[in-house]
Formats: sequence, structure tokens, C-alpha cells
Amino acid sequence: MHQRQALAYLGPSSSYSHQAALEYFNRHDYIFEAQGTIQDIFTGVQSGSASLGVVPFENSTNGSVVFSLDLFADRERTYRDIHICGETYLNVHHNLLGFASTGVSSDASPGGSGDATPTNGPRSNERQAAHGKPVTKPLASLSHIRRLYSHPQAFGQCEAFLSRYLNRVERQEVSSTSKAAELVAQDKTNSSAAIASKVAAEIHGLDTLARGIEDREDNTTRFLVIRKGEETAEPVAADEVDSRERRANYKTMVTFTIEDGVPGSLTDALMVFREHDLNLTGINSRPSRLTPWNYVFFLEFEGSRLSDPSGRVNSALEALGKVAKTWRWLGSWKAAKVTSD
Amino acid sequence: MHQRQALAYLGPSSSYSHQAALEYFNRHDYIFEAQGTIQDIFTGVQSGSASLGVVPFENSTNGSVVFSLDLFADRERTYRDIHICGETYLNVHHNLLGFASTGVSSDASPGGSGDATPTNGPRSNERQAAHGKPVTKPLASLSHIRRLYSHPQAFGQCEAFLSRYLNRVERQEVSSTSKAAELVAQDKTNSSAAIASKVAAEIHGLDTLARGIEDREDNTTRFLVIRKGEETAEPVAADEVDSRERRANYKTMVTFTIEDGVPGSLTDALMVFREHDLNLTGINSRPSRLTPWNYVFFLEFEGSRLSDPSGRVNSALEALGKVAKTWRWLGSWKAAKVTSD
Repeated sequence: MHQRQALAYLGPSSSYSHQAALEYFNRHDYIFEAQGTIQDIFTGVQSGSASLGVVPFENSTNGSVVFSLDLFADRERTYRDIHICGETYLNVHHNLLGFASTGVSSDASPGGSGDATPTNGPRSNERQAAHGKPVTKPLASLSHIRRLYSHPQAFGQCEAFLSRYLNRVERQEVSSTSKAAELVAQDKTNSSAAIASKVAAEIHGLDTLARGIEDREDNTTRFLVIRKGEETAEPVAADEVDSRERRANYKTMVTFTIEDGVPGSLTDALMVFREHDLNLTGINSRPSRLTPWNYVFFLEFEGSRLSDPSGRVNSALEALGKVAKTWRWLGSWKAAKVTSD
Repeated sequence: MHQRQALAYLGPSSSYSHQAALEYFNRHDYIFEAQGTIQDIFTGVQSGSASLGVVPFENSTNGSVVFSLDLFADRERTYRDIHICGETYLNVHHNLLGFASTGVSSDASPGGSGDATPTNGPRSNERQAAHGKPVTKPLASLSHIRRLYSHPQAFGQCEAFLSRYLNRVERQEVSSTSKAAELVAQDKTNSSAAIASKVAAEIHGLDTLARGIEDREDNTTRFLVIRKGEETAEPVAADEVDSRERRANYKTMVTFTIEDGVPGSLTDALMVFREHDLNLTGINSRPSRLTPWNYVFFLEFEGSRLSDPSGRVNSALEALGKVAKTWRWLGSWKAAKVTSD
């Protein structure tokens, strides 16, 4: 009988990571296992207790997930066998969840007025200028909300709404948006709210105080799929021709470090991709923690080391190895199409 | 009579930003004004209410200050006149501050045993592997600590200590380490602690529960000095010769964006610096928020637009303007030497 393998995602159940994993994988093919942290996913995949992992990597509004970058940087060589083997995009819509005001508060605006508790502090105009206009209005009064729970990434994706309607409310960062909803459901004072998904509202029995509060309607999170070991190279037909168009079907990620104090090292490393006509699609850096101001650089480009008819990708990586102090191939995978609703 | 100008820094008084500003500027030359947020500093300098601003930009252990990157990205053209005109480095040492346990707790370890409340959770070994070994031990029992206040950057700089000794303690992120110390001083339950500076302990009358808890002793934060308008170009002698060594005395920062869907755009932009033999020292990216997966790139390199005998820097920027969709010179300044204790 077929034994289903374990797939680790960032929990709890019903998290955005869970939704992303369910869109990418057939739910009947794997045992989906919720993990408490992104690091737990890496640990599980490295140890073999999970065959695959799904980790958030980047949000279109708020940028890189620094925790994930730091795990891929793998400074201590803890996750040496982990490779990226896929990606998936999830449109992310955040709601403001809580309990609708019972109306005992004397300063409550009429529910649904669409003009509930705007923040009138002296800074609200300035903040507005920095964050743009919110795309939605509250469905109910927010005047009873004193504390707001969510994940740091979700706060970063909803700044326009928050600076307009909840500017002076205390923020408490928690490990997931689902956890935020759970804490609000347990708060008997009825004075807290969470930024979380529609699914979280259903699970925890919360009212939706505002819908779609993300700054941008095209707010999308990109998840990477990780596994232990390398994928097997795809067979390439003898007559298959390499081209930019063909390479655009694949992505590859590498990290590298450069020697301290050697001028031109970074440009030399970047030059490799120009010389091999490989299209860079992403660039990032994190401290290497070897010496201050030395970095681990992350580069992502179109093409696959595993399906490389002209040998161009493999040749580029070889050239990178000659100019970088250290480098690591993190994986090549089939590029996903960006989803939209 | 000479009118002193205002200098804005990230407050409150005695913050690391304040210390950095006091090391860079003579305290008698300016009126030092504490601001509540980095954005307030930008707003003050743009409006002219402050002549200069000092903003944290990057930490050697924990990386970029994303808030500062987003303000320099200036997507709404709110800070169009702001330029960088200097930099300064500050060694940052964090202490764990609170009230020493009164000994009523039955599980308190002997004070000063150096082995107070290590975290025995199943994950502590894994976390240890990811964060390295803490460089110090607690000076007192930490078993009474239930909640930990600090700035997100400070948490990120002390992960090894925290994962070893305070792994399961709730973390509350606040706007500054000084604010964290203030909140702990006000907490009458005696169950909270702050990660903050030695100065904050003195100001708020707190005990030092552990000293130097940062992951790395060379933990350093780099601050940028901003002003309104461009600096005046330095006169360059007719016989002055451009060289790598001369350029290494200066730094320049630019931001740029590239067209969506034009392969090779990013490598073309990076090539400019190679072609002009300009040494790249930093690279970063943030979402442009124009379309998903379009970015604002930040490049920092050696050389000055304002003191440029061979015209090399100005020529490179002109070339960048031809390949980038948009670009902006954020300033050129004299490079500071990295300080050490």
C-alpha cells in the first residue's frame, strides 16, 4: 500500500501557508503537517521527518521574509541538503476581525457608516502621504478597539488602512495571523482585533470589521517548496535548443559571499550573469555574520541547472565559483505563473 | 548672534540614535530634537523644521532597517529634496534590564550562578544550531521573567541569548529600546524585562540582569545623516587624479527601478558600475509597489558625485539613467571609518 509522505507548512491549520500548500499539492497525496515556525519546516525537511516543505519567501507589497532568507543563508551549514524544487503564488486578502461593538461605547459611530474612528492625530496626514490611501473602509465602528494582533508581515501589508483608522492602537506581533484571531477570540474585554484571513474568522467565530484591508488588491505572497537532496536532472533531447524563452520557464537561486576588502568583487560576481546572458530576476543581501558589513548575496535568475541544453547555467555557476569566496546552488525549479483572483 | 540649527534623531533621549548623533556632531552646535519615528525625521528635514537628521540604516548582525529603506525609496515623492550627506557607526551593546528576582519564586536559580533558567524546550537545541552560542550568561535568575520588551532590531541582534535563556517568554515589540526600559520600570508585577542600553538602565532605575547579550561583540549600527537639498560640490584641483584609493574615501547611494518584463534590465543597470570601475559596496531591493514583483533597487558604491576629478561617477549615473526606468541620486558623502570599542 502506498505510504503518504509528510509535507510541512507554516501552521496553524488555515494559515496562508496552508492555503498555498493546498493549491500546489493534492491534499490526498500528502499528510499535511502544521509547523510552529519556518525554522521547524527547514529542520523537518533536513532531518527527513518531512519530505517537502512550503515556506513563505516574499510578499509583493512588503518584500522579503527575512526569516526565510536567513534560513536559506544557512550560515552554520545546518540545512546543507535542502534545495528549492518549486514555487507557488497566493493572493492574500486580509480582514480586520473582532467583535462588533455592542453599542455601549458613547463614542461609537453608527455601524456601517464607513467613517468609523478615523485617526485625527497630528501625524495622520503625514502617514497617509507615506502609505497611500486605504482601499477600503470599516464595516463597523472601530472605536472600541484598543489592541491589534497580527503577524509582522500582515501589519506591513495594511499600513494605509491602519494609519487611517487605527493609528494610535497598540500593536502586538504574534507568530501567525491565525494565532492573532485565536487571541482575539479569547479576549473577553472585546477590545482587541486581529488582521487575519476570512478562514480564520470562520474558525474562531469572529465578526468581520473590515474586509480586504491590504494596501494593494494585487497583494500576493510567493512561497517556495523545499526538499532534501537535489532533484534528478530532466533528460534533455539532443536537438533541444537553449533560448531565453526556454530559460524563462525555470528559475534558479544561488547564494554567494565575497572576500572583504577586494574592490570589484561584487561587480565581478554579478558580471557572470551578464556574460552568460542570464536574466536576473531578484537580488537580496543579508549580513554574513562572519565580519561586520560582509554579506550573503541572494541571486535569482531564469534558467535551470537541471535542464540546461547549452550548458549555459552550469557554466555560469562554475564562473561564479571562481570569483566568489563561497557560493551555493539553492535549487532550480519550474517557474509558476503569478496567480490572480 | 549665531542661531543654532535643529538636528532630528530617533528618540527618546539616550537612544542609540542619540548616542550616534552625539558622536558625530558637537552637542553645542545643534539643538538635538528627539523624534518618535524615522518617518518624523524625514518629514522634519523635508519641511525644513530640522536642518539635519540622523537615521539608523543598517546593523552588522541583523541587516537593513527596512523602515529606512522604504523612506529612501520615497515611492510617493514625499521626500524629494532629502539627500544623504554623512554616515557614522556605533558599536551597540545590549543589556537585559529588569528587576532582580526577590527570591520568592521557588524555581529561582541562585543569583549569579550563570546557569539561570536555560530553556529546556524540545526546540532549544535546534534554535541554538541556527543562532550560534550566546556570548554571555545571565547575572541573575531570569525565572520570574514572563514578558520581554524591545525594538524588533534588538530582538534580531540577540537571538542566541534569547533562544538559550528566554526561549518561551512572550515578546512585545515596541518603538525603541528606551521605551522598552520605561515600560519595564512601570510594570509593578516585576515579571517583565527589556533589551536596552546601559544608559536606559540608569535613566529608568533598572537592574542589569545580563550584560552584552548581543550575538556578536562587533555588533555595529550604521547611521546616515540626511539634509535638505544637495551639498555644494567640493572644488577639485586641476591636477587632482582620480583613483580607486581616492574614491574609497567617499560613498554614493542611488536607487533605481527597471521596466517590467524586459530581460536583462537588471544586469544592464549593474553593468554600468563595472564598466566605470566603480566598487559596489551594498545592494538591496524593496517592492516598488507599482506592480507586484517590480522593485526599487538600492546600490551603494565608492566615489562621489560632488568630488569627481575624472567625471567617472557622473558618467556612470548618466549611463544608469539610460538603462533604468527611473533612478535617483540619494547623495554622496565622506566615508566614515568603522568604529570599534
